[in-house]
Order: sequence, then structure tokens, then C-alpha cells
Amino acid sequence: MTMLSLLSMRARIEAGSLTPAEAVALTRDAIAEHEPSIRAFVATDPDPHVPDTGPLSGIAVGIKDIIDTAHLPTQMGSSIYRDWQPRADAPIVARLKRLGAVPLAKTTTTAFAFIDPTETRNPRAPGRTPGGSSAGSAAAVAAGMLPLALGTQTGGSVIRPAAYCGVVGVKPSFRLLPTVGVKCFSWTLDTLGLFAASAADAAHALALIAGRPEIDQPATVPRIGLLIPDYCEAAEPEALEALDRARAIAEAAGAGIRAFTLPDEFRHAFDEHATIQDFESAQALAWEYETHRDSLPPLLRAHLDTSRTIEAAAYDAARRVAHHARRSLRDILRNSDLDVLLTVSAPGRAPEGYASTGDSRFNRLWTMMGVPCVTVPVPGEGPPLGVQVIARFGDDARALVAAKFLEKAFTDRP
Amino acid sequence: MTMLSLLSMRARIEAGSLTPAEAVALTRDAIAEHEPSIRAFVATDPDPHVPDTGPLSGIAVGIKDIIDTAHLPTQMGSSIYRDWQPRADAPIVARLKRLGAVPLAKTTTTAFAFIDPTETRNPRAPGRTPGGSSAGSAAAVAAGMLPLALGTQTGGSVIRPAAYCGVVGVKPSFRLLPTVGVKCFSWTLDTLGLFAASAADAAHALALIAGRPEIDQPATVPRIGLLIPDYCEAAEPEALEALDRARAIAEAAGAGIRAFTLPDEFRHAFDEHATIQDFESAQALAWEYETHRDSLPPLLRAHLDTSRTIEAAAYDAARRVAHHARRSLRDILRNSDLDVLLTVSAPGRAPEGYASTGDSRFNRLWTMMGVPCVTVPVPGEGPPLGVQVIARFGDDARALVAAKFLEKAFTDRP
Repeated sequence: MTMLSLLSMRARIEAGSLTPAEAVALTRDAIAEHEPSIRAFVATDPDPHVPDTGPLSGIAVGIKDIIDTAHLPTQMGSSIYRDWQPRADAPIVARLKRLGAVPLAKTTTTAFAFIDPTETRNPRAPGRTPGGSSAGSAAAVAAGMLPLALGTQTGGSVIRPAAYCGVVGVKPSFRLLPTVGVKCFSWTLDTLGLFAASAADAAHALALIAGRPEIDQPATVPRIGLLIPDYCEAAEPEALEALDRARAIAEAAGAGIRAFTLPDEFRHAFDEHATIQDFESAQALAWEYETHRDSLPPLLRAHLDTSRTIEAAAYDAARRVAHHARRSLRDILRNSDLDVLLTVSAPGRAPEGYASTGDSRFNRLWTMMGVPCVTVPVPGEGPPLGVQVIARFGDDARALVAAKFLEKAFTDRP
Repeated sequence: MTMLSLLSMRARIEAGSLTPAEAVALTRDAIAEHEPSIRAFVATDPDPHVPDTGPLSGIAVGIKDIIDTAHLPTQMGSSIYRDWQPRADAPIVARLKRLGAVPLAKTTTTAFAFIDPTETRNPRAPGRTPGGSSAGSAAAVAAGMLPLALGTQTGGSVIRPAAYCGVVGVKPSFRLLPTVGVKCFSWTLDTLGLFAASAADAAHALALIAGRPEIDQPATVPRIGLLIPDYCEAAEPEALEALDRARAIAEAAGAGIRAFTLPDEFRHAFDEHATIQDFESAQALAWEYETHRDSLPPLLRAHLDTSRTIEAAAYDAARRVAHHARRSLRDILRNSDLDVLLTVSAPGRAPEGYASTGDSRFNRLWTMMGVPCVTVPVPGEGPPLGVQVIARFGDDARALVAAKFLEKAFTDRP
């Protein structure tokens, strides 16, 4: 399977060798070929409107099925929302349309973006989960069915499936992209993100969608802090080897790299992610729980059974811990000589089987910190492994510049 | 018109002299009597389920019509959402139901909670606006049609209509109540609030809804900072007279009162409210603007025509100003000997006529600061005037305790 490059498609469209309609048709052909085995979609527009102009014209986009679309159902991965048709597009979808893109299909999501697995298969790792919750978006890009897809991350729902499926995933700074019209799980954590075939593609798309051209900059040589996480259970040897391989290649390409460690405070902050997420999710899904508990999938049902017992005082304390940790991280990075941190994207390769969507423990802290994260696939044999680039809050440009540098170094390596 | 007191109704229900069903029937009778002249409702449940138990059983609640309800349409005050029926209850509605309350009716709102007036009339000030955007909720409580109603405030949409209609309005700390399932205008400003007949009623309801019993405390004698606002155009003499009357009564009742002024920084912060609100509203309402511009009411349409031109850099700068001002206010209040600030709720009485919903300039700064605000009607002749109590972020209890103190002093005065 060859992935569809957004920048290549746009270059051909701008050169006049491909029309936007032909580009979308090409995407639809790829979907027809691969979807029967991958099952990344829950709905596809049979007769999409394809704008002739716009900086993303010809680009078909997959929309995670917790994001409202006026022209396609939005079913939240749950029978409770079977055939549910919102009135309006979420702002992120309206924005894509305004840029000329075609929100072609809704992609599978775990129910309400929690952890009960989907039917989606991992195009790069047969027999293994594609990850979650944004399973369909990651798999669709990995299978070459779409050049761009939207996901959301509350714990690790963008970076983890992207890493497992061998694509680039971007979780931007908190609220860089508006989550209005996106089904809420946790209002202080839910973050919209992108999946693309390359960091260059992702940077180009994010700059346009956010209306912030400065996000899309040429790669420069970054100063990197190498973070071997010790604030939670260690990563698997394969993930650490991939991180070391990435380090070696980046170093050979000229990057300045030094070890970086987080103060103990962040171990505590890491623990409190669950308090915040769980307290908020119990409120966010109150109607679903109160009126349709039996229709909830088992992991989410059990989660809400317990998370609704969290006390407001525990939540307030967790919010204070998070607030303090965000300020500490800002100060630490501001006072360092580092552009970005480099760490693992996930504990290892996608777990075998389909009973789990994998583990978000190397993503949750960063989601809570609100900082931009990008996962880039590391070259190697076997099922994909990614490394995660992390920059300061609001400095999405720097995260993507470093990701592009790594991507180029990985491609150019001898 | 006599207002319906939540605490009185609950006392009768707990004493067994009124059943929850009778309490709701009483409310429905009041609606039948007054609604034809007030026009506070857009939909009423013809056959409401009335729980027999729960700490708010028997309490019929008005729900501003930008808040999703599974059993009643949610029309956003706009023809674009005519007959729109959400699938789910917003968490705040699910919470009310869980407490035994009856979300009986949807109340009028200006379109998308902006400033194009509704058809609602002010029960206390014939010929004058009830204010907005939560017009129906304020008017319904003022007319004695409901003991409790929900509103939202992005600029001054709870405190202003409450003051104009002579009821108590509470805008709690930012995100004390989840805005999930509430149509978004500005995600960093939109705040859910309550309308009730008294501060005691409002405190009782807020403590239950938020699941924070500590919010409902007995009145104690507060230390008050008297704020004559100078960070924007001055209030009208009548409003300043009412503030001085409130001060005199509070002082006579034993409150410690001293003058309080805000540093110049807050003048700048005040100005930036619009930058944040307008930038976010252009995104939040992108679908409505792109696809239904001609169906938008004139003031909102003109607002979106201009607000969509705001640059991301201006927004980022405004967010930094707001962030800094929030920290400054926290430090100023923390280092003071004051429990609360006391200031005007609105520039004056409700403006005459129905062409405007009035002016939110004495509310916007506090919405942006995220701090709890309560308006309490000041005794006097003529159309209502309110004073506004403001406490530190997260200290909703203290704002309501002081409001209760004022309310009692106003009632007990010789």
C-alpha cells in the first residue's frame, strides 16, 4: 500500500496535471480497493461536492465519527446514536470545506472515543490493533485511502493509533483547533488532531486549517532533549530501540541532542490525568449513562460506573496539579536550550489481537500539558514504531519543523 | 406578580403539604396566566415526568433554548434550527433530572445568544427590554412562572437580564457547570448560570447542581470592596445611586466596606474581551455563517461579517492579556482583606423599547476573568436595578454568602 501524499496531490493539482475531481476519484478508487479489508469507514458521501478552487481542493478528508457533519450521520461509535444526523457541521468541518477540501467519509471511532475496540484493521500490522480511539482515521491514511484525516485525543487517541499504523499524527496545542461540534469526553483534555502520510503534509494542512501560515516552515536542525520516560511504567525494549535509532540518525544529520529528564512533579501530574478525564467524562456522558447504560460497551460502562463517584474536591486538586505542571513545563523549556523533546510515541508496537486498543501512557501527560505532539514513523522492519516530538505550548511550528527534520533524516539515511 | 421561591416550594414538599406533582401544576397554572403577555417560552413539555423524590423534585426549570434537551426542541432562537430536536440532554439538563427537577420549558434566547432582541417582555418594567441573551429565563422567574431557570453568559447575558427583570442571577466560576451540549458562541467565555427569586434559592440550587454542598452556606457579614467602575464608560446616575443605597444598607447591617479600584491593566483587559469573543464566535458559527448567512438576524450577521477578519495573532495577544489579568485579579484579591467586590450590575435600568437588549459593559470583564458574579435586586421605586457581587475564581460560596447577606439587609431595612 502506498500512502496518498497531500503535498504531491496538491502539486499535481496546481500544475494542472490533476483536477480536484480526479484527485477525489483517485481517493475513492483506493477506498473501493482497501476498505473491504480495513473497515475504516462508517459512512462515505456517495456524491461529494468537489470545489474547483481552494488551497485544499481535491483533498478528501476522513472525519472521525464523533465530529458533527451536516451531510453525513455522526454515530459516535455507538448504537445510541445510530443514524443520528446533526444539523450543522462542526467548525473544523466547515473550515475544511471553506479551504476547498472534501469531507468525504466518517471514520470509525471507539464508542465516544473511549477504549472499546472498533472493527477496524491495521493496514501495516496484520493481526494487531490499529489503536484507538481514532482508529479509522489512522488506518485510512495508512492504507492509502485518504491523504488527510481528523482525529481527537483525550489520552492518546491521535498519537497512539498513528504510531501503530505507521503514519504521522499531530496533536496540536490545546484548543488550536476548536472542539465545538465534537462529542465531548473531557472538556479540558479533548484535542483535535490530524493524520497524514508525512510531517510535511501534516504541517501544510494544519497551517491552513488553523489559519496560521507560520506553522508550515522549512525544516531546520533542531536542538533535541531526549526523554526516556521514567514517570510511569517503562516502554518495551523495541520502542526504546526505535527511539535510540531515531536519536542516532538525527545526530548523524546534525541535530544537537542531550538527555532530558522531568522533575518528580510530573509523575504526580501523570497520575492526575485520570482524575480529570474521569470526572469530566461522567458529566459529559451523563445522558448516555442515565438513559442508555445497557447500550454502552462494557469498558466504557464500567468506566462510568466508577468515574461518577469521583469527588469534586479530588477533581479540583487534580486541576491545580495540572495547572502547576503546565507552568513548570513552560518554565523548564523556556529556560532550556532545547527546541523540542523526543520520546517514545507508544509503549511498543501495536499489541497483537483486537481485544485492546493499546496503551496511552506515553501520551496522557502531554495531552494534559496541552503541548503540541507529533509522531513520526521510525524506519525499520516489522510492525510500525513511532517517535514523538514535543514542543512548548503554542509552538506547533517548532514541533512540526523538528518532525520534518527527523522525517527527512530517516528518508536520507545511508 | 409574586415570584415562586424554590426554597419555599421545597419546604412545603418536604413537610408533605405539597406534592412534587402539585408543585409543578402550580407552576403550570402560573405559566398559563402570564405567558400570553410575557412570551418567555418557545416550547413547554405538555406532559412532563415529575419524579416523586430527589432534592429538587417538584421544581420546574426553564432551559435557555441554546441548551440541548432530548425531550424538547432546541432552536437556538434562530429559524436555522426550526424544530431541531437534539438526541441527548446536555449534561446540565441530565443533572437537573437526576436531582428530581423537571426541565419543563425552553426559554427564549436571542439568536445564538447574541444581541438581536427576542419577543419576550419585561414583567417588571413594561415597555422596556428584559435584556438578553437569556431573556426568557429572566422574565419567566420575574413573572413568577418558574422558581428556577438556566441561562448562559458570554458578555453579560445572565447578570444583565436578571438585573433588568428584578431577579437574582448567578454567573458561577468559569466551567463550574459544564457547557457541553450548549450551543457555543465563545468557548473561553460561555458560562452557564442560574436565575432564581432569591440569592438563597440560587445558592441552594447551585450547590445541588454542581454537587458542591459547600456553596450553600449561611449568610455571614462580608468585607466588601466598593467598586465604582472606571475601566469603561461610567454607569448612569440611577445605577450609581442604587449602588450607594446598597452600600448604605449593607454598612448599616454591619458590613465592612471600603473603596476598591482596579489597576489600569484591567482597562486593557476589558477592551480585549471583544477580540476573544469575536474571533471565537466566527469559528463557532462558521457553518451557520457559510451556509445560512441570509437567515441570520441583522446584528449577528453584521457581527460575523467583521469578526471573521480578526487575525490569529490579535486573538493570541488578547488571550495573553486575559490570562495575565486573571492572575493579577487573583493576587489582588488574595492579598486584600476583602471577601467580595460590590459594583453595578448594568449601566442603569432596562432601556426603554425593544430595539436593544441593553449593554453588557459591566459584565464582560468579569466573564473574561471567570470569577463568580451574583446580581441582587436593590429595593426602590420604578423599574428594577441590581447590584453585582463578585468573588474570587472558585469561591462561588463567598459570592453567594455575601449576596444572601445583602438580600437579608435589603429586606430587613427599617
